[in-house]
Amino acid sequence: MAEFTHFNEEGRAKMVDVSDKPETARTALAQSSIIVSEEIYQKITNHEMKKGDVLAVAQVAAVMAAKKTWDIIPMCHPIPLTGVNISFSWEQNQNGSYQLHIAAAVKTKGNTGVEMEALTAASACALTVYDMCKAVDKGMIIGPTYLVEKTGGKNGDFKRTEQVK
Amino acid sequence: MAEFTHFNEEGRAKMVDVSDKPETARTALAQSSIIVSEEIYQKITNHEMKKGDVLAVAQVAAVMAAKKTWDIIPMCHPIPLTGVNISFSWEQNQNGSYQLHIAAAVKTKGNTGVEMEALTAASACALTVYDMCKAVDKGMIIGPTYLVEKTGGKNGDFKRTEQVK
Amino acid sequence: MAEFTHFNEEGRAKMVDVSDKPETARTALAQSSIIVSEEIYQKITNHEMKKGDVLAVAQVAAVMAAKKTWDIIPMCHPIPLTGVNISFSWEQNQNGSYQLHIAAAVKTKGNTGVEMEALTAASACALTVYDMCKAVDKGMIIGPTYLVEKTGGKNGDFKRTEQVK
Amino acid sequence: MAEFTHFNEEGRAKMVDVSDKPETARTALAQSSIIVSEEIYQKITNHEMKKGDVLAVAQVAAVMAAKKTWDIIPMCHPIPLTGVNISFSWEQNQNGSYQLHIAAAVKTKGNTGVEMEALTAASACALTVYDMCKAVDKGMIIGPTYLVEKTGGKNGDFKRTEQVK
Amino acid sequence: MAEFTHFNEEGRAKMVDVSDKPETARTALAQSSIIVSEEIYQKITNHEMKKGDVLAVAQVAAVMAAKKTWDIIPMCHPIPLTGVNISFSWEQNQNGSYQLHIAAAVKTKGNTGVEMEALTAASACALTVYDMCKAVDKGMIIGPTYLVEKTGGKNGDFKRTEQVK
Amino acid sequence: MAEFTHFNEEGRAKMVDVSDKPETARTALAQSSIIVSEEIYQKITNHEMKKGDVLAVAQVAAVMAAKKTWDIIPMCHPIPLTGVNISFSWEQNQNGSYQLHIAAAVKTKGNTGVEMEALTAASACALTVYDMCKAVDKGMIIGPTYLVEKTGGKNGDFKRTEQVK
Repeated sequence: MAEFTHFNEEGRAKMVDVSDKPETARTALAQSSIIVSEEIYQKITNHEMKKGDVLAVAQVAAVMAAKKTWDIIPMCHPIPLTGVNISFSWEQNQNGSYQLHIAAAVKTKGNTGVEMEALTAASACALTVYDMCKAVDKGMIIGPTYLVEKTGGKNGDFKRTEQVK
Repeated sequence: MAEFTHFNEEGRAKMVDVSDKPETARTALAQSSIIVSEEIYQKITNHEMKKGDVLAVAQVAAVMAAKKTWDIIPMCHPIPLTGVNISFSWEQNQNGSYQLHIAAAVKTKGNTGVEMEALTAASACALTVYDMCKAVDKGMIIGPTYLVEKTGGKNGDFKRTEQVK
Repeated sequence: MAEFTHFNEEGRAKMVDVSDKPETARTALAQSSIIVSEEIYQKITNHEMKKGDVLAVAQVAAVMAAKKTWDIIPMCHPIPLTGVNISFSWEQNQNGSYQLHIAAAVKTKGNTGVEMEALTAASACALTVYDMCKAVDKGMIIGPTYLVEKTGGKNGDFKRTEQVK
Repeated sequence: MAEFTHFNEEGRAKMVDVSDKPETARTALAQSSIIVSEEIYQKITNHEMKKGDVLAVAQVAAVMAAKKTWDIIPMCHPIPLTGVNISFSWEQNQNGSYQLHIAAAVKTKGNTGVEMEALTAASACALTVYDMCKAVDKGMIIGPTYLVEKTGGKNGDFKRTEQVK
Repeated sequence: MAEFTHFNEEGRAKMVDVSDKPETARTALAQSSIIVSEEIYQKITNHEMKKGDVLAVAQVAAVMAAKKTWDIIPMCHPIPLTGVNISFSWEQNQNGSYQLHIAAAVKTKGNTGVEMEALTAASACALTVYDMCKAVDKGMIIGPTYLVEKTGGKNGDFKRTEQVK
Repeated sequence: MAEFTHFNEEGRAKMVDVSDKPETARTALAQSSIIVSEEIYQKITNHEMKKGDVLAVAQVAAVMAAKKTWDIIPMCHPIPLTGVNISFSWEQNQNGSYQLHIAAAVKTKGNTGVEMEALTAASACALTVYDMCKAVDKGMIIGPTYLVEKTGGKNGDFKRTEQVK
C-alpha cells in the first residue's frame, strides 16, 4: 500500500491520516450564545416554558451532540471523549434583550483534537434553546460561535486573545 | 387515556403533542456565516485545502444534518423532509477578512414546521467549513445564525424585517 | 412483483408489510420502574448527584429513545411520532428502598402502533437513572416494564386489567 | 421564498424538492450476491460459523440498513418504510465456488421511490455475510448489485429485462 | 483552562471527566427477562412467529444496542467494546407462563466500565422479543433487569449476592 | 465470570472477543465499481447532474459510511478510524458503457482489522453514485466489490493476486 499517499489526487475530500500523531491529553473550550427577548428570558429562568426546563434540556443536547460530532462533521475523526461540560451565564444587553452565553469544554486522550466536538456541543446547545423557546418568538439570534482555547497535540496550544462580540 | 394532558406536571421536558396540527406545506429559510482569513478564503476558492473541496463537503454535511435534526435537538419532532437546498455567497469585510454567507432552505409537508431543520443545516454547514480549514487558522468565527423566514402552519408566516449583522 | 408474499419462505426475519393498515391516531402508555436505595433517593430528590439532575436527564433520554426505537428494535417500523410525554412518581417500599415509577405516553398518526416506542422510552428512562446513580450503588433493579394501554388500529384497544408488581 | 428555485446555482449537491410528487404505493426489488468458497458454504449452511447464524444476522442487517438508507446516502429522502423482506438462494458455480443470491424487496407509501432502500438493504446483507465469514477466507466477492424492478411514482415502472451476471 | 473544575456549578448534567481513570480490562454481566404466555413460548421455540426467528433477531438487537449505548444514555461515555455475548434460558412459571432469561456479557479495555452497555443490551433484547411477539399477546412483562457482576476499574468489582426475582 | 466462554452455546450471533488481540497499525484497501451509460458518464464528468457533483457527494458518503460501519454490520467491532481515502478512475467498456472504479483505503490503530470499513465505504460510494444518477437511468450495475489487500494483525496480511472482473 505504498501508494497510499498518492491516492485521491483529484483533490476531493478525505479524512486525513492521523495515525502518526501522538496520543496525548487534549482539551478544547468553545463558546456560543443566543439573544432572546425579555419574555423568553423570564420564562426560561422561571421554568415556565411549555416544552420544559430549557437549560436542562439544552445541556443534555450539547453533551450528546459532542459525542456524535464525527457523524455530523464529515471529515472529522471519531474520538472517544472522556469528559464534556456545559456552562451558562446570562448577560443583559443595552436594548433590553438578554444574551445567554454557552461554554462547552471537552476532553479526550487521543491523536487528534476536540475543537470540533466543543464547537458542535455549543452549537447544539444554542439550537436546542431556540427550539424550546421558538413558540414564543422566532427572532432569536444564535452566535457568534468560536473556539476559545485548546491544549494538547503537536501543533501547540491555541488561546484566543481578543474578545469576540 | 383521558389523563394524557395532566401528565408531567413536574414541568419537565416533553415532545409536545402536534397530532391535531394540520398537515400543510411548510418551508423555512435560515442563514449562518463564518468569518475566515484571506488565506483561508484563497485556499477555499482555489480548492487548495488539504482536506478537500470545502464548500462541496459543507453542503453535503448540511443536507445530512437537516435530516437528523430530530436526533440532535431533543424535543424536536421527526419530520420526513421533502427538500433541502444550501447556497453560499462571499463578502469581503473592511478589515480584510472574508465572510462566507450560508443559506439553508428546507421544505416538508407535515404537522410541524422545519425551522429547526433549516437552522441545524446552516449550523452544520458552518461547522464543517471550520473543520475543513482549521489546520490553517483556528480563529474563524461562526454566526450569527438565525431564521430568515418560514411559511405554513396555523401560527402564520414569519419574515425577519431588520437585517442581522 | 406478484411473488412478493411468497418471499422469505425460510421463515427468517422480516419487517412485515403494513401498507394496507389504516392511518389512524394511535396512543400507547408503558410503565417501568427502578428500585433505589434511600441514599440514592435522597440524592436524586435533593439534586445532589454528581452527574446532574437525574430525572431531567432521564426524561430527555426517554424522549430521544422513543424517536429512535426503529433503530434499536430491528423489525420495528419507522413512525413519525407526534408526541412523547414522560412522568414520574415515587413510592417507598416496606424494606426502606424507594421505587421510581416511570410512565411513558406516546402518540402518532400512522399505520402501525407505538407500543414499542412507549416501552423503549420507559426502558431508556430507567437505564438513564441507573447510569446517573451507579457511582453510589450498582444494586438498583429496573422493571418490571410493561404496556399499560394502547388505542387505535384495526386490532382494537388494549388495556391491562390486573396490576403488575 | 419565490427565489427558492434559483438557489444553489453553483451546481452543488441538494436534496431535490419532491413536495409536489404524488403519495403513492411504491415497491422496489434489488438483488446482490456474494461468491464464497465451498468451505464457507458448508459452514454457513451447517451453522458452524464462529460468529453465529450467518443468514439470520445478514437478514437483520439488511432490514435495519433499509431503514437508515437516508442516513447513508446523502441526497436520499427520508421515507417511512412499510415493509422490508429479504430472501436468499444458493447457486453452485462451475469452478466449485458457491454464490449466495440476495433479494431485497421494500415497500412504502410516499412521494419518492424506494430503489435506494432496496439496493442498500441488499448491499448491507452481502457485507454482513462477508463480515461473518471473513475469518475463514477474505477472497469473497460481492455483487453485482442492481435494481430488478420498481413500481409506483409518476415516472412509471422499471423492469430489468436482460439478466445480469 | 484552570477554571475547568469550576464549570457548571449550577449542578446540571455533565459527562464526568474520566481522563485520569486507568485503562484496564473491564467486563460486565447483566440480566433481564420477559414473561410470555405458553402460546408465545411455543411459537418462539417452534419458529412459528410471523416476524421471524425471535431469539436470533433479539440477539442481534442486543449486540447492536450495546454498541450504541453512548447514544441512548446521555451521560454515558463512548467506549469501543471488544466483545458482546448474549445468552438465553427458559423457565416455566407455576402459573403456566414462561420466563425467558437473558444474559448480556460485555467486555472492553478502557477507562470506564461497561455496566450500561450490558444493561442496555439486555433491555434491547427483551424489547425485541416483545416486538416480535406482540401480535399474539401484548401482556408480556419485561424484567427485572439488573447488573449481576462487573470487574475492572479502580472502584473494585461488584458481584450481586442475593437473587433477584 | 469464569463461564464467559461457555456462554451462548446455542450457536447464535455474538461480537467475538478481541480483547486479547494486539493493538497494531492496520490498513485495508477495497474496491467497487458501477457501470453507467454514456449519457450518465457525460453528465457526471460535465457536472450536469441535477442532484449535484456526483463524485464529490459520493466521496463524502464513503467517508461517513466508513465511520459508521459498526452500526451497519451487526457483529462488527467499533474502531476509531485514523484515515479514510477514496479514489476514482474511469474505464470505457467495449459495449460503449463506462465503468467507474472506486478504491477505498482505511487506516486505524486497533485490535481488529478495517476490512469491513473499506468494503462498506466502497459500497456506500457506489450506492451514492447510483442515487445521484438514477433519474437518468435505473439500469446501472454496482460491483463487483471486494478486498484488495489488508495489513496488520496477528493473522498476517492479505493481498489479492488474481484480477476480479
